[in-house]
Order: sequence, then structure tokens, then C-alpha cells
Amino acid sequence: MGQNFFKRDDKDVRFVLKEHLGIQRLLEFDAYKDFSMDDFDMILKEAMKIASEEIAPTFQDGDRDGCRFEGGKVYVPKSYHRCWEVFKEGGWFGLAMNPEYGGQGVPLVISEATQEFFMSANFAFCCFSGMGPGNGYMIERFGSKEQKDLFLKKMYDGTWGGTMCLTEPSVGSDAHMVTVKATPDGEYYKIQGTKTFITSGEHDLTENIIHLVIARIEGAPQGAKGVSLFIVPKIWVNDDGSLGEANDVTCIALEHKIGMNGSATCMMNFGENGNCRARLVGEPGMGLAYMFQMVNMARMAVGLESVGFGANIYANALDYAKNRIQGTPFGKKGHDRVRIVEHADVRRMLMNLKALTEGMRALVYKTYFLEDIAKASPDEEGQKWASNRVELFTPIIKAYCSDRIFEMGREGIQILGGYGFTKEYPIEQYTRDCKILSIWDGTNYIQSVDLVGRKLRMEGGKVFMDWIDEVLRFIHDNSSVSTLADEMKLVEEAVQVVVGISLSYADYLKEGKVALIPLTSTRFLDCCAEVAISYLLLEQALISLKRLDGLGPDHFDYPFYRGKIETARYYVRNFLPNVFGRAKSIKLEDMSAINIAEESL
Amino acid sequence: MGQNFFKRDDKDVRFVLKEHLGIQRLLEFDAYKDFSMDDFDMILKEAMKIASEEIAPTFQDGDRDGCRFEGGKVYVPKSYHRCWEVFKEGGWFGLAMNPEYGGQGVPLVISEATQEFFMSANFAFCCFSGMGPGNGYMIERFGSKEQKDLFLKKMYDGTWGGTMCLTEPSVGSDAHMVTVKATPDGEYYKIQGTKTFITSGEHDLTENIIHLVIARIEGAPQGAKGVSLFIVPKIWVNDDGSLGEANDVTCIALEHKIGMNGSATCMMNFGENGNCRARLVGEPGMGLAYMFQMVNMARMAVGLESVGFGANIYANALDYAKNRIQGTPFGKKGHDRVRIVEHADVRRMLMNLKALTEGMRALVYKTYFLEDIAKASPDEEGQKWASNRVELFTPIIKAYCSDRIFEMGREGIQILGGYGFTKEYPIEQYTRDCKILSIWDGTNYIQSVDLVGRKLRMEGGKVFMDWIDEVLRFIHDNSSVSTLADEMKLVEEAVQVVVGISLSYADYLKEGKVALIPLTSTRFLDCCAEVAISYLLLEQALISLKRLDGLGPDHFDYPFYRGKIETARYYVRNFLPNVFGRAKSIKLEDMSAINIAEESL
Repeated sequence: MGQNFFKRDDKDVRFVLKEHLGIQRLLEFDAYKDFSMDDFDMILKEAMKIASEEIAPTFQDGDRDGCRFEGGKVYVPKSYHRCWEVFKEGGWFGLAMNPEYGGQGVPLVISEATQEFFMSANFAFCCFSGMGPGNGYMIERFGSKEQKDLFLKKMYDGTWGGTMCLTEPSVGSDAHMVTVKATPDGEYYKIQGTKTFITSGEHDLTENIIHLVIARIEGAPQGAKGVSLFIVPKIWVNDDGSLGEANDVTCIALEHKIGMNGSATCMMNFGENGNCRARLVGEPGMGLAYMFQMVNMARMAVGLESVGFGANIYANALDYAKNRIQGTPFGKKGHDRVRIVEHADVRRMLMNLKALTEGMRALVYKTYFLEDIAKASPDEEGQKWASNRVELFTPIIKAYCSDRIFEMGREGIQILGGYGFTKEYPIEQYTRDCKILSIWDGTNYIQSVDLVGRKLRMEGGKVFMDWIDEVLRFIHDNSSVSTLADEMKLVEEAVQVVVGISLSYADYLKEGKVALIPLTSTRFLDCCAEVAISYLLLEQALISLKRLDGLGPDHFDYPFYRGKIETARYYVRNFLPNVFGRAKSIKLEDMSAINIAEESL
Repeated sequence: MGQNFFKRDDKDVRFVLKEHLGIQRLLEFDAYKDFSMDDFDMILKEAMKIASEEIAPTFQDGDRDGCRFEGGKVYVPKSYHRCWEVFKEGGWFGLAMNPEYGGQGVPLVISEATQEFFMSANFAFCCFSGMGPGNGYMIERFGSKEQKDLFLKKMYDGTWGGTMCLTEPSVGSDAHMVTVKATPDGEYYKIQGTKTFITSGEHDLTENIIHLVIARIEGAPQGAKGVSLFIVPKIWVNDDGSLGEANDVTCIALEHKIGMNGSATCMMNFGENGNCRARLVGEPGMGLAYMFQMVNMARMAVGLESVGFGANIYANALDYAKNRIQGTPFGKKGHDRVRIVEHADVRRMLMNLKALTEGMRALVYKTYFLEDIAKASPDEEGQKWASNRVELFTPIIKAYCSDRIFEMGREGIQILGGYGFTKEYPIEQYTRDCKILSIWDGTNYIQSVDLVGRKLRMEGGKVFMDWIDEVLRFIHDNSSVSTLADEMKLVEEAVQVVVGISLSYADYLKEGKVALIPLTSTRFLDCCAEVAISYLLLEQALISLKRLDGLGPDHFDYPFYRGKIETARYYVRNFLPNVFGRAKSIKLEDMSAINIAEESL
């Protein structure tokens, strides 16, 4: 077993859930009426215990031992097996899943909070544990009654794993161009072709793996409409639920990667011997539409994964900074050396980590909470409103969080100085591991185009403007709070800038300057994220201000609430101003990247 | 042997040397009068050949085989040995060194250009090859005649290696606090203690390694003034130059690191058996002052190393982008898929890489050129002026380039998508390897404090303002060039902002807001760098504009010069505006990172 680097706590998570979002409201919904806040507390407490005591010790094993590929089989690090059993015993696989199929049906926002802890402990392990329920849910949503009965229970309880097989060697972002073939064969199909970058495509954790494979039925039309979704078990599952023969599915290689060595990224061959059997899910031609339900969940998850990494990087950097003695404070020659947490620049870097972690968490949890509302609210209009907001935020969360988390890794390494560069401390591994997040489930550029090209225009722009109005209303309603007046003003100014850019996109289209959209969309997305996070952190600061009222400096909670106020302030004053630099650049309408000839590159 | 990823060329290097800096001028100096431009050309051509054909194939070996530590010995990757012989045969170790000791005495800027090629090929290898000459030069500058005769030739020709032993386990940034002891022992000293993070501390490339060790002579005063510099050979060198007994120096461990596996980072024990012999260099108590001469060279080298990495990342990302087919152009549904170099966002990322690489190169080469002038100019005033400018630019170069290069690694990985995350392509390794640059030779924060606390005040601020005046004069002189008018205006605006911040630092001191200096100095440094680079790239654009005059689009050089203009434009319009965002933040005088109590972190 490797070293245990789990140093983070759950204070901010509980604050977000109870004091900021007020998840108590979920208990009013039918779907959650059998739960109590005590249940949620117990779940969170137990998850934290398992994360810190059972999963965290496997973090280094994942990287150092990695996943071994031998004779077509993949062996996970030994210590994963015990974690799998712990998950099974505790019913953690199906925490948010449908009770009808053995799940526990807790709200998404609670289940995802436990996931944040688990991901902090060892994200590579979670790539195995999350795939069964995640893919099972696709079958639940779009599969037949028979398929549900056949697969769900075992995918929701960790007996079987799952995968999502979409990418092919020359089909990454172009999901609609898949070439893997499906041929009708009685009531089933036969699949033939190669998929690549398949997370958890093969491993020795479960008796079976249920692959969800995107393929093209022979003779189907070109493009997205010709693509269907298939259930392809590693070992065939007979109609009575018993296991049949090994299916014609093989892992032919593991990717060697900069990080995530503890997660098996597989190249998979389907039907090399012409005998890979599959069941069609739902309607032919709907494969991509179905798959994108899952992809959207995965995009949200990227945000949560970033939060998990961030909490760890922050906790480990803080721990080091509180113990490492080096240097005298700026401007105080002859002063004794101090712990580096006392240096202004280290403080600045720690605040970067704290503000980003808490800011990203606020945005991600808020959106999961909205998803619960979209799913379970009794009020249809409220459902629609929440679901629209989730759609708007999904690309923002995916791209902003995954770009920031890599920078946070850099910052963490920098705080540790020379030791940050070594494998003695875990931050280098977090940094390597998290790099995948800006790439998978749609590159961050694709997110930005989704935001500008699709989400801005939802309901004729109303969804976006509704959010903008909410932020402005919040500022207006709280302009009398003198402690945060400067921050409120800055957010208001930034909102105007963001709206200005969004309007200019319409102009670009009219004026034939289309290229300016993809040239600037990633920066626009970051601007939106910074406004969104500033708003949420200021909400948290206001709550904290109220809590502090009458609380003495000796009170246990005093430092936490004081910290929240400074954190909001820090974010707004140090991150949000980037909006103005970017806007200045965007306004210049620079086309040099397009104007430059390819021979000049 | 690993795969050869050397795809970069030398076009921009030659442009910078000849057309931008006009190194022809160096031939007028006595020190370089025996050289011709043909000589320089030949040297560059040969270096490029060796880099691409001999050294580049060892790049992956360095990472995959790494340096092995067995029985107190360190074994470098096998393929390094042949490179060492090639360097010896070609006299590459001593290219810029004093001919009196076997060097070739070429100008620094030429020698460093060859280093850029070698570093691009395998920077980890260069950590071995550069240490003999680099440390030998310390002996040349501060050692006795006997020491020079004894050590220099063999350190300049690759027969012996060298190291700089400064850092100790609890002494990183606090160089003046070293605890390693030196005790007088007749005409020699005995050394006792442990040094850590010693690059090339032990290896099997040379028959001997000459350690330069910073230690405290027994009874010496506390702090910097008590620190001296010693020559500690791995194998004792007798006064007649013959090799004596093994000295009491051992490598006790190799660091395991995120990158630079092909460079041996050693923990070294000196005098474990009380028998580590040493010769004192220069005067007692002058150790740190001497060492900092070398540290300054190393800080400049960090800039060059970043350029070397940048050229590689750019070349490899460009190559991939020109070949990978994926996606249809933005706004053109149903269009055929295109090579990703045709996508606006990929173009943007490629331009980030191109503009930064060329911008950093302009700044680094300009400064090496100034160093040649400072060393060899016949005019004393010119020498002083050039040397001041080098001092001003050194921290800017070190911190800006090393922070950017890691971001460039990220950008390169992103261009390659999922493949960028794998070890099939070299960009992940560049990204891991380059991470050390922001840490070693003084963290980037230390650079920023050096800039604000020391360099801004040089000669009462004249050195800084002289540079500012030069930039403003340039803008004024070229305001009639309509092609670049907007860019010139933007630089002028940014200069005003930079001057404004520099003035506010004096106010902070007066107003008791000292903490605002270390809180903002890293951002101020980046602002200075962006102005410096904008200015140099615009100089290059003006030169290119002139060259294009009368050149048809079919001319061989046409795309290059057109590209330089677009690159300058891109940098000024996409990087320089960051200055305004940062300034907005700095003006807010945010103290939240200081105000927040430690318990709130």
C-alpha cells in the first residue's frame, strides 16, 4: 500500500449543501421524502471515512503499480480489490440509482458529494467504480424492460462493470463518424471494429463487463442518424440472466499515459473472430442522442473531479506550507525564518487554490442541485427552468474547472518548491492525473462552441439572459452591504462586459466575421465562469456575514465564516479582473491566427 | 534508442541573430575578431546536425531508462555515452570558454544558440554536459592560477564533469543558511555535511566530477558572510594534475521526479568518513557572491531552456495538426472533415505556441547579445549599460519564460487531444520535464522580488526608466507605420500601466502597505515581460515589413516574413492585454490573502 495523502476535510461541502444550497428543500419532493437530513449526514460521514481510510491508501499503488496488461487480460493494482468489496458491502455503487433496481435513490447532489470524497482519495479507482452505474443508467433510460431486468441490478451493485465505447482511432471529436459495424443476426446484432481510449475496458474487478458500444448498422445512413447503441457484454448474458460464453471482445492494448496509470485505458477489438454478439438499445439511429445523455453527465463529472483534485492539492499544499520553514518575511531582513505559510506570495498561491476549489465546488454543487430539482420537483415549470440552467452551466463547468485544475497542480507544485517536483509528495501525481479532464468528454474548445453556438441561443437567448438578470438582481438587492460593496460593483461591471461579448457574437455572424467566434469562445466561456463563481462566492460571503453576527472570535465556526468572506473577496479581486483583460483582447477582433498562411506556421 | 521527435528548424534563430540583433557587430570586438559570419554559420549548422541526429534519439531513453542508482553509483542511459564522445570530438563543451584553457571563445549568443538546439534534443542530457564548463568558469573567475591550471582544461573538454552543491534538505531559498561545515586542514579543508537536489552529482560519463561546494568554515560568522566556496573533486586531483585517491564523497540517493528522469538529481554526502578534502576558492566568506555569478547564468539559461522546449512543443504540435483529420470547420455543417490545423481554435493554440516561443527567444537572445557586449565591447560606458540591462532582464526572463513553458506544454497536449495524454507523443514528457524551470535557480517569486526590490531601484531607477524610454521612443519613431499602428498604441498604453504600477510600489512602502509588493510582484513581472516581448516582436515585424518590400509571394522567404508580422500582431493583441486585467486587479490593493487568518485557511 502506498502513502495516505488524504488531508482534506468536508467542512466546505457541508456548508455548501446545507447553508448555501439548502438541500433540506429536497426532502419536500416525493422522490426524497423517505430521507432525513440525518440520513444525508450519515452517508457523508461514512463516505468520508471510506475515502480516507480505505481508498486513499491505494492512490500511489494506482500510479506506481499501475494496471498490468498480460495475455489479453488487465490486472488492476491489488489493493483495488479490497476497495471494491467495501463499495459492494456499503452499497456505494448504486447510491443515487433507482431503488427498483437495487439503488438507494439518494439525491444526486448527495451522491456526488460522496463521489467528491472518493475522487479525492483515488480518482483512478473511481474510473472503475463509476462505470457500472453510469452505463447502467443508459440502459435504464433507453433500454427495454427485459434489458433492464437483465443488467441493471448487477451493474448497480458492482457485480458487473461497464464501459462507454465511443472513440475510434480516427474518430475522436467527430463522434458521428464512427465506423464500427453492426450486422443484424436474428434478434441480436454482430459487432465488428476497434474502439480506442476505452476507460475500464478490461479488468479483473468483476465477473463481467457490460460494454455500451456505438456502432453503425449496415446500410444505415451516413452521419449521426446512422449511429446506434448496443449492449455488448464481455461474457454473454443469457435471457435467463445466467452467464453464457465469452463474447468476442478483446482488449488488445493499454495506453501508456502521463497520468491515471491506475485507470485502464484500453484499445478494444470487437468481433475479431466474427462472433461478437450485441443487443440493440432503444431505436436504431438514436445511439448518439442516447450517448449524449451520458456524455453530459460525464461533463458535469469533470467539474466534480476537478473539485476533488483541487481539495487535495489545496490540503496538501497547505499542510506543507504550515510545516516548511524557509525564508524571512518580505521587507524584514534579519527576521527569523518563518513557516512559508507566513509569506505573502505563498498565501497568494494558497488563496488561488482555496478560492478556486471552493468556487468550482459552489458552481458544480449548485448545478447538481438544479439537476435534482429538474428531476424531482413537483412543479413542471420549475423542472424546465432548472434543466435549462443545467444545460447552460454544463459546458462552463466542464471547461473552466478542467483548465483551472491543471493550473492548480502547477501552483501546488510551486508552493512545495523542489519537493513539489519529486514523487515524495502527491501533487505531481494529481497534476499528471488531472490533465485528461480538459480533453475527454469533449475537448474544452467543444464546450465553448456548445456554449456560444447552442446554449446562448436556447429559447432565443432567454435562458442565458435569465441567469444574467438573476446575477444583476442579486447585486442590486445587496448593494447596501458595505463590506462587499466593491466586490458587488466589480461583478456588475464584469456582467456588462460578458453581455457585451455575447451580443457581439450576433454581430460577427451578420458582419461575416464568423471566425472570431471560435477564436474567442474559450475566453468567453472563462468570463462566464468567473462571473458565475463570483456570484456564488458572494452569496456564500453574505450567508457567512449573517452567521458571524453575534459570533465571538473564539467560537469554533468563526474562522470558517471569516475565511469564506476573505475567499469571496480574493476571488472577485484576483480572478474576476481577468474578464477585463480578455474583453480588451476580444474587442480587438484579432484575426492574425486565421490570416497567417499555413506555410508561415 | 527511443524515437526521434526533433522536428524543429533553425529559421527563427538565424533571423534573430542576423537580422534582428545584427550579431555581425560582434566581429568588430577584439575578442571575436578572428571569427567570421561563416564560422558562426558553420557552428550553427553542425550543432543542428548533432542535435537532430545524435542527441535527439536519446530523449526517450532518458525518460524511460532513466538514471539508475546501484551500489552508490549512478548509471546514465547507455545512449548518452556516445553523445558525450561526439561532444568531446567536436569541442562542444568549451565552445564559449576561454581559448587559454582549451575553449573556443565564440560569442555567448552563438554558443547559447547551439545550446538551444541541444536542449531541444534532450535537455536532461544537457544537464550533464553543461555542468563541467559552467562550474569550471567559476574557477576561472575566482580561483587561483594553480586551480585554473589544475582543473579548467579537463572541465572545458568533457574529461571531467562538474556540479554546483548549494541546496541542503532544509536550506532551499535560504542559501545563506547552509550548514555544511569546512574545517581547515593544512593548505586544504575538510568538508562535512549533506547536500540535496544536486544535478549530475554522480554519473558514469567522466573519470572525475569536480564539485563546487558551498560550506561554512568553522567559526565563520552567521549568514551570507560566513559562507565560502570549495572545490571538492570526486577523485582527488594531486598538485601535479594526476588523479589521487577517491575522495570521501558519496551519492546516497537519486530523487524520483515528475520529469527529467534522464538527469541525475542526487543527494550527496560529503565527509561521511571524515576524509573529504577540498580546496578553497578565492576569499573565505565570498562563497555566495561567487556562486551567484553562476546562479545568474543559470537564471538566463532557464529562459533558453524554455525556448528549447517551446520550439519542440510547437514543432510537434504543428506536425500533428497538419496531419490529423478531425471535425468540420466552425459554422460549416456538412463540410468535409479537415486537418485540424484548419480549425480556428487549433490555429489560436498554435499561435500561442509560436508567438511565445519566438517572443521568449527574442528576449533571451537579445539579453545574451547584451552580455557579449558587456563582456567584449571596447567602450566602457557601453559595457556598463549592457550589463545593467542584463541584470534588469535576468529575473524577468527566468520567471516569465518558465511559467509560460508549462502552459505551452498544456496547450501542446490539448492540440493533440487524447493522444496528447499518451506517451506515444513527446509533448507530455516536455511538459513534465520543463516543470522544474519555475523552481530551480531561485523560485519565480524570488525573481519577482529581485525585480521589484532590487532591479527597479538600480541607479535610482534609471536602468528601468532607460528601458521604458527606449520602448516609448521606438513607438514614437514608428507611429507612422500604419500596418502596426494599433499594436504600437496598445504597447504604449501598456507601458503607461507598467510605469504606473512601478510607481505605486514606492507608495506602498510609504503608506505602510508593504505586503502589496510581494502579493503582486509576480504579476508585475509578467507585465514587464509582455511589454518587453511586444517591443521586440514589433521590431522584428518592422524588419520583416522591410524585407517583404518588393518580395513576391512566391519568394522562398515570403511566408516567413509574413508570418513574423502576424506573430507580432497576435502576441500584442492576445497576450499583452493581460497587462490591463492584472493592473485592474493590482489597483484594487487586495489584502485578503494577508487578512485571512491562518486558522481560516
